[in-house]
Amino acid sequence: MLGSTHGTLTTDSRRARAIACGETPQQIVHGRPAEAGDLDVSGRPLYADVPDLDRFFRPESVAVVGASDTEGRPNTGITRQLLAWAERVGARLHPVHPTRPSVFGVPCSPSVADLPEQVDLAVLLVSDPLPLIDELAAAKVKFAVAFASGFAETGEEGALAQQRLAAAVARSAGLRLLGPNTNLNAFERFRDDLDGPAIALITQSGHQGRPVFSLQELGIRLSHWAPTGNEADLETADFISYFAERPEVGAIACYIEGLKDGRSFLLAADRAARRGVPVVAVKVGRTEAGARTAATHTGKLTGADAVVDAAMRQYGVIRVDGLDELQDTATLLARARRPRSGAPARPVADGVVVYSISGGTGAHFADLATEAGLRLPTLSEAKQAELHQWIPGYLNVANPVDNGGHPVGDWRGPRILDAILDDPAVGVLICPITGPFPPMSDKLAQDLVDAAERTDKLVCVVWGSPVGTEDAYRETLLGSSKVATFRTFANCITAVRAHLDHARFTTAYRSPFDEAPRSPSPSFRKARELMRPGQQLSEHAAKQLLRAYGIRVPREQLVTSAAAAVRAASLVGYPVVMKASGARIAHKTELGLVKIGLTSASQIRDAYRELTDIARYEDVPLDGVLVCQMVERGVEMVVGVTHDDLFGPTVTVGLGGVLVEVLRDAAVRVPPFGEDQARAMLAELRGRALLDGVRGAPPADVDALVEVVLRVQRMALELGDEIAELDINPLMVLPRGQGAVALDALAVCR
Amino acid sequence: MLGSTHGTLTTDSRRARAIACGETPQQIVHGRPAEAGDLDVSGRPLYADVPDLDRFFRPESVAVVGASDTEGRPNTGITRQLLAWAERVGARLHPVHPTRPSVFGVPCSPSVADLPEQVDLAVLLVSDPLPLIDELAAAKVKFAVAFASGFAETGEEGALAQQRLAAAVARSAGLRLLGPNTNLNAFERFRDDLDGPAIALITQSGHQGRPVFSLQELGIRLSHWAPTGNEADLETADFISYFAERPEVGAIACYIEGLKDGRSFLLAADRAARRGVPVVAVKVGRTEAGARTAATHTGKLTGADAVVDAAMRQYGVIRVDGLDELQDTATLLARARRPRSGAPARPVADGVVVYSISGGTGAHFADLATEAGLRLPTLSEAKQAELHQWIPGYLNVANPVDNGGHPVGDWRGPRILDAILDDPAVGVLICPITGPFPPMSDKLAQDLVDAAERTDKLVCVVWGSPVGTEDAYRETLLGSSKVATFRTFANCITAVRAHLDHARFTTAYRSPFDEAPRSPSPSFRKARELMRPGQQLSEHAAKQLLRAYGIRVPREQLVTSAAAAVRAASLVGYPVVMKASGARIAHKTELGLVKIGLTSASQIRDAYRELTDIARYEDVPLDGVLVCQMVERGVEMVVGVTHDDLFGPTVTVGLGGVLVEVLRDAAVRVPPFGEDQARAMLAELRGRALLDGVRGAPPADVDALVEVVLRVQRMALELGDEIAELDINPLMVLPRGQGAVALDALAVCR
Repeated sequence: MLGSTHGTLTTDSRRARAIACGETPQQIVHGRPAEAGDLDVSGRPLYADVPDLDRFFRPESVAVVGASDTEGRPNTGITRQLLAWAERVGARLHPVHPTRPSVFGVPCSPSVADLPEQVDLAVLLVSDPLPLIDELAAAKVKFAVAFASGFAETGEEGALAQQRLAAAVARSAGLRLLGPNTNLNAFERFRDDLDGPAIALITQSGHQGRPVFSLQELGIRLSHWAPTGNEADLETADFISYFAERPEVGAIACYIEGLKDGRSFLLAADRAARRGVPVVAVKVGRTEAGARTAATHTGKLTGADAVVDAAMRQYGVIRVDGLDELQDTATLLARARRPRSGAPARPVADGVVVYSISGGTGAHFADLATEAGLRLPTLSEAKQAELHQWIPGYLNVANPVDNGGHPVGDWRGPRILDAILDDPAVGVLICPITGPFPPMSDKLAQDLVDAAERTDKLVCVVWGSPVGTEDAYRETLLGSSKVATFRTFANCITAVRAHLDHARFTTAYRSPFDEAPRSPSPSFRKARELMRPGQQLSEHAAKQLLRAYGIRVPREQLVTSAAAAVRAASLVGYPVVMKASGARIAHKTELGLVKIGLTSASQIRDAYRELTDIARYEDVPLDGVLVCQMVERGVEMVVGVTHDDLFGPTVTVGLGGVLVEVLRDAAVRVPPFGEDQARAMLAELRGRALLDGVRGAPPADVDALVEVVLRVQRMALELGDEIAELDINPLMVLPRGQGAVALDALAVCR
Repeated sequence: MLGSTHGTLTTDSRRARAIACGETPQQIVHGRPAEAGDLDVSGRPLYADVPDLDRFFRPESVAVVGASDTEGRPNTGITRQLLAWAERVGARLHPVHPTRPSVFGVPCSPSVADLPEQVDLAVLLVSDPLPLIDELAAAKVKFAVAFASGFAETGEEGALAQQRLAAAVARSAGLRLLGPNTNLNAFERFRDDLDGPAIALITQSGHQGRPVFSLQELGIRLSHWAPTGNEADLETADFISYFAERPEVGAIACYIEGLKDGRSFLLAADRAARRGVPVVAVKVGRTEAGARTAATHTGKLTGADAVVDAAMRQYGVIRVDGLDELQDTATLLARARRPRSGAPARPVADGVVVYSISGGTGAHFADLATEAGLRLPTLSEAKQAELHQWIPGYLNVANPVDNGGHPVGDWRGPRILDAILDDPAVGVLICPITGPFPPMSDKLAQDLVDAAERTDKLVCVVWGSPVGTEDAYRETLLGSSKVATFRTFANCITAVRAHLDHARFTTAYRSPFDEAPRSPSPSFRKARELMRPGQQLSEHAAKQLLRAYGIRVPREQLVTSAAAAVRAASLVGYPVVMKASGARIAHKTELGLVKIGLTSASQIRDAYRELTDIARYEDVPLDGVLVCQMVERGVEMVVGVTHDDLFGPTVTVGLGGVLVEVLRDAAVRVPPFGEDQARAMLAELRGRALLDGVRGAPPADVDALVEVVLRVQRMALELGDEIAELDINPLMVLPRGQGAVALDALAVCR
């Protein structure tokens, strides 16, 4: 008996089908908001605590362990920088050194235990921070930053040292550690004269974070920088959770080389998604994906990077490739962020208007924007007539709006902008200024800045000149905290697309953690008995596993003689398929171990002999021959479960048959996910039109396919740590209303 | 009798197959270099004259017709600008005005006929240039530039006016016209203090060309700017041909809104390809492609934009999307250009080394570069040992090379760079400087500039700071004419990829125009008799057309009675396929007008009755029923011809069956093209692995498929203007060595 994985799957037709599969419908209670300590059925947490990092970023008192003022030593530079920082922010700084009486004139404590007060933060400049941990904990130090390198980044030995360090911190029950192998980026000089929602930055490399930090020189506000280093304790996820709760943060920008833990990242992303705070991330590792997609099983269709990609998309994390995209996208998302209210997020109008002083520029931008999926609505006749009050009649103002250059130079400029921004279909105005021509572009830049002050909508400018020293750019545009200014069409389009997608995502978001199953289904007990640790199940056993979860399989019988095969055929009904069945058989078709369309007893006897002959010849042990009902007309799909090192069990769906190998047209998701994501997986498939019916074929039963995906997810959640791999290939999706049948299945136990 | 379309297709096996198809092999003479006046078999030119534009760009004497010095009039500003320009370059300027005695103190001529000397160039500031054309021609003026707007850009009436203008210029037999609707961009102030190969710029919009022109402010040399406007006479192609011959031009950058003529563009691109001069182009119109791909026939699989894309690729034109990519790619290609010699282009080593002061930056860049198809070879053990003389042993120097920061600050920096650039596997060194840190990055920038002076290899730097006012960037890097400096990883990767691709392309390039057929094949006469202008041919007639060109079709007979069908079946051999045949039938399968796998006389009689019943019911007139040999085992492809408005007949090849509709997996080429391009088409298909054999299927006869594509190309060249559309769907490509058979064909005559 299987209740549906999600409350949304309780229509009568599905209930009826479940009953037809020999099950009793059952209502499983989901939908309770996850709380601290809640675990899902797989034992994974449903809730992440948010560390209180206020005193980390704004400590009132700081100890510097290993402080130095000897010229030429690296620690001296760091100490000097910390002293300047402490003076700037008004923090009390205490050097710690076993022998020096003072450093730069500030009295030293010989040890942490001797500090004159309980400090918020200890900066550890020693080469081995491990021996200090207990001392720091005893002194009730809240946070430590460990600079030392030589840990996990150097190989196996360093990784062990890091584990010891992490264990010591975990034991301390109070102290939180940043690093090792990190730096002082959190205590740089942040500009406090900039307004508007800020970017909070998280990086695993100082060099890579520097350009985002430098955005402040362009007038873009940054509130924090967390350089996470090796993440022995505090990790990217902790900072995402923390920043998502800070009112001054408009967007979180991340540079990630490796995620410490998949689940904690997802829980943090979930928190940001609930709060509507956008997270933009560069995640290195695109090309690992290539290497991982070599194998032919469903599970491996999507390599590690595709799983990261999917996981990010599930939680609305915006993944970008370049640091320039990270900067530009985070900037726009921060600027697009409206003050919070208790009310649910208002959907942003997704219409984009392109406004230019040149028809060519407008057409070029519109071409690229449309190609990238932005929607450029044709302005209404009335709006066009309004614009033609100020723009000559021969110019196109339908969108893109071409003003021909001249009206921007006078009083008409602001009116045109206001008229466009006033249109309810318009959410974003983009003005590409490709070739600056000061008499026009200076005025235009000022008009755009002024118009942005008068509207809640988004005003974007592309300053296309490669020179970048022009006043209109440096002073006027970058001087505005409302306009988002870009240097390239591409980055503007990427950022606007991210903003609109994120607004849509946030509006529709329901946390899957609230709805994740917390206790096993009755299917679980049945299924568990079938597991054979470390072994591959026979096709017959794998199909029993599917049946346990209410996934339909063909009528079939396992036989061990030709005579029994003939009897089985009359039970399952002609025509039949016959297949060799055994625990170690893969690639049956290639080996000739499948016979289809058998219509008579003599054909069945021949097939039985042939299959057993081949199996003998190929030295494949059989547990028998399957005589199966033949299911012909449908769309072949694959659905599978595989185990990802970072995220645990994942669910894959793809186009089946020969195409799965040729085109690798598959989508993956990390459980838990809802029906919306199951449908989104299908929408991602390039060959998705096959499901709609092509060349006169009837539309396939997509609802049934979605249900199979969700039932497989339930298996993944309940058995995920016992299943190394599950492959339904093919799942024959029958015409609409007729369901879906798993024609073959492969299961490997861990 | 059909000779092969290209000399490359004369292997014995193909010859044997041609004989088997009832043909006699014949050697057609190809490979003569095309000359002025040569036409291919379709009547299209094989050679473009290069206009001598020396006196256009560097006129010694200029007339300004409609000159003005009345303040506030647009012509006054233009006249002033021309006067300043003439003074700067030492040209003689003659105002022309019917009534004024002088303009800005320069004596006026009342008309062109009264000019004091024969001028090289007349700038026409009058609103209607048409009446002036004869007068200009009579005065033997070499070039005219027409500023007036109101022509093709405004609609039908303007287009007619432009045709009249173009006709007048064509009659003049001497005068060449730039415009109308253009400007003075060709006569801007070009910096003459920059060295190295220059960018020559061609644009259809001044606003869009401005940022490329502004590159001079960043130290990048520009030699010309051709603002082509409406191209009534001189067009983009003319300027490409001209620039390709200029020794100072290192790369040609184009902004194209619409091509005037497909063939002239290809001939110009061919000229640039022969000379090894890279052409980089933005071509607006990506999204038309989306709109054009709706229909289900092969011919329409690839919309107009895909044809432009393919045509550019055939001739090595590098298409980019953004103006920033245009700038960065053209800059790199110009800088990568080595002095010309008579010797054939030396292949550039395609190995890329990434060198960084931060492991994170190196890894991030390498990830994106590898994803984009750049090859980052692992440096040899010996080279790594050499680098470890200067770089600490714990840092990775395999590639990316991580120097950890410190060695750049001293004497080791230059040695490391020289050692990397000295490696024969390395063609390009890229140094991403993400976060500038002056004590290191200033020295690094200088070392890179110095190293670039000592090598012939390409040195690229990404200056990742968004600020862009740093000295190391503005002074050091931009001050070098050898280093190519970028602001984003993406643009650097795009440009380096373009450079390496172009080097490979140029090395292998053979002009297809030299090898294009100039006279019709014997097939042509046979095929022509089958054409029925304005009509769709029956399947049977379409297959005869294919047979005429030596493309194999199944054994088949057209019958008009059930009895004849049974007789036909024993002639073609059981099992057979039966299909309704008629001039207006498409989508036979959907209509139930195809019966496959018929194995007996009674099945054939039933099928005959059923097919004719359906045809009657669907009101489809038949010319009979085809009884065809059944061809089962192979890969289904589609091959077709369609007529492109710009380029004429094009050839498409794609994956057949249901996939052609779902995935639109097809490649297109503009004839003439060689076997190399036919093979490249197959390599472009996402589902190409199907041809290699999957799941135990044997590899398909790719050679036979290529031959069919080339024979279809021959048809396209000879009949292209009489065929609106040709579709072979499916072409069954049999296992290797067994050929390919056109199972169905659709032909529509123009």
